[in-house]
Amino acid sequence: MSEGPIFQRVALIGLGLIAGSMSLAMREGGLAARVVGYARSAETRDTAREIGLVDEVVDSAAEAVAGADLVVLAVPVGAMGAVAAEIAPHLAPGAILTDVGSVKQSVIDAVGPHVPEGVHFIPGHPLAGTEHSGPRSGFATLFRNRWWLLTPLPDSDPEAVEKLSALVRAMGANVDRMEAPHHDLVLAVTSHVPHLIAYTMVGVADHLRRVTESEVVRYSAAGFRDFTRIAASDPTMWRDVFLHNKDATLDILGRFAEELFVLQRAIRMGDGEHLHKYFTGTRAIRRGIIEAGQDTAAPDFGRAAAKAVR
Amino acid sequence: MSEGPIFQRVALIGLGLIAGSMSLAMREGGLAARVVGYARSAETRDTAREIGLVDEVVDSAAEAVAGADLVVLAVPVGAMGAVAAEIAPHLAPGAILTDVGSVKQSVIDAVGPHVPEGVHFIPGHPLAGTEHSGPRSGFATLFRNRWWLLTPLPDSDPEAVEKLSALVRAMGANVDRMEAPHHDLVLAVTSHVPHLIAYTMVGVADHLRRVTESEVVRYSAAGFRDFTRIAASDPTMWRDVFLHNKDATLDILGRFAEELFVLQRAIRMGDGEHLHKYFTGTRAIRRGIIEAGQDTAAPDFGRAAAKAVR
Repeated sequence: MSEGPIFQRVALIGLGLIAGSMSLAMREGGLAARVVGYARSAETRDTAREIGLVDEVVDSAAEAVAGADLVVLAVPVGAMGAVAAEIAPHLAPGAILTDVGSVKQSVIDAVGPHVPEGVHFIPGHPLAGTEHSGPRSGFATLFRNRWWLLTPLPDSDPEAVEKLSALVRAMGANVDRMEAPHHDLVLAVTSHVPHLIAYTMVGVADHLRRVTESEVVRYSAAGFRDFTRIAASDPTMWRDVFLHNKDATLDILGRFAEELFVLQRAIRMGDGEHLHKYFTGTRAIRRGIIEAGQDTAAPDFGRAAAKAVR
Repeated sequence: MSEGPIFQRVALIGLGLIAGSMSLAMREGGLAARVVGYARSAETRDTAREIGLVDEVVDSAAEAVAGADLVVLAVPVGAMGAVAAEIAPHLAPGAILTDVGSVKQSVIDAVGPHVPEGVHFIPGHPLAGTEHSGPRSGFATLFRNRWWLLTPLPDSDPEAVEKLSALVRAMGANVDRMEAPHHDLVLAVTSHVPHLIAYTMVGVADHLRRVTESEVVRYSAAGFRDFTRIAASDPTMWRDVFLHNKDATLDILGRFAEELFVLQRAIRMGDGEHLHKYFTGTRAIRRGIIEAGQDTAAPDFGRAAAKAVR
């Protein structure tokens, strides 16, 4: 597929983990003739310039999007609306406008009204990330073998959707399409509530740390260590996720609390049979995930750390 | 330190992940002149024989411990008492008896009364594991750079404790000592409750899978994927952990539920400031863990899977 770049000028609004990784992936693959970036923070812009994250860092969102045939909103979900309002008058006719927010319906509600006639708004969400953030955190392979969900609107131009899909695939990801509300429910289960739970557990440990001094950190066994990794994710991004996917998050949290109380009661009553049955059932889901190719069966509970030391 | 083996005959009761890894580590390091193993299940014994996991697999616990200068109880916490009663008459005078259970006070209560005069009972707990179990799951490097907590009794012979510690260190682990009740509280926070939460979240997803078909599995993002890995751990082992560390688990679960409800309320009320402050705080703990050398800063949210595929 060495047919030259898919887009002539890509404008990245926001220069964090996702945008940075997109730039590196697009440049590595020759997928964009020119990648222009803008971030609200002058410090982020300076860093991006220093490390050559994009072809050009500009000092306004308007300047970035001028003449771009692809504009990517890569800012926290809560900032999408304001950014859309700011860039709307400067968007080129025929341009594709997408985003990478973890919540889709609220982004559609916030951005949609600002999109000018003739611009193709195709919301998207790459299911990829690490616990790191900022302009130095990106890497070209972030999207490889990951899903990138698109939630086109009923009137989205199929050709524009296909063009964006081609870019996503060229960066190594798999594309799937679904409706925005459905996306938000699926992600509440698979990502948003698990993150909230990890944050909570780490918070509990933090209180107890005062009791047990540094032991909680020192003896952080596998379970907790994985939680702290999750709980180190970007606070602003996650605040916005929960505020903007409120209904689905609260729904799943309610189910989680019910379920936890049933297990808690089994522990209190000494009902080992219930616990064993429950824990046996959860193994099957794990097998499903391995079979779906989204993880390997290789054990890595803390193994990465051991390898790094030896 | 090529001074020959530390122990002459090591008896492993139970041939799962921990015992198997101990055998492999001891043999790799020449730490035991002979490693004898027993497991209750004939299938496990056959597998262990087939793969040569230990020097000799015997068909009774009594036979295994006869003449051993180190006996390791590597069975689920709930089975420790019965095994101790069975082997007690066959323990050699001067032998060291240890265990690898994830809960310490209940093991002391169950095993202690059976230990004959002249046998040194030194409870222990290696903070190491993977989500795999059984005789094929062990590997020699499992304990490297991990903590191995010993909870000696007030009358434990210091020389015996030192000898066991030497073995543990020779297998690559770091030794620390603490009192059993304190161990159980620290582990409730860092391991037991996080595991229960992971089991619960995977259970919630399982219910919803019927609603959203296979999408929950297909789009398992980083948070959930890490949870399923934890929730694939051995059901019998974990049932016993919760039943035998009931008080500390229920205490921490109570704190967790309180904390979660406060965050849930913040989401419901749209209190972004509270969420942001909370999420910022949890990052600091993560940094503490990296500084304590129990994990690396390298991002690996799903990266292992991507690498395996490419």
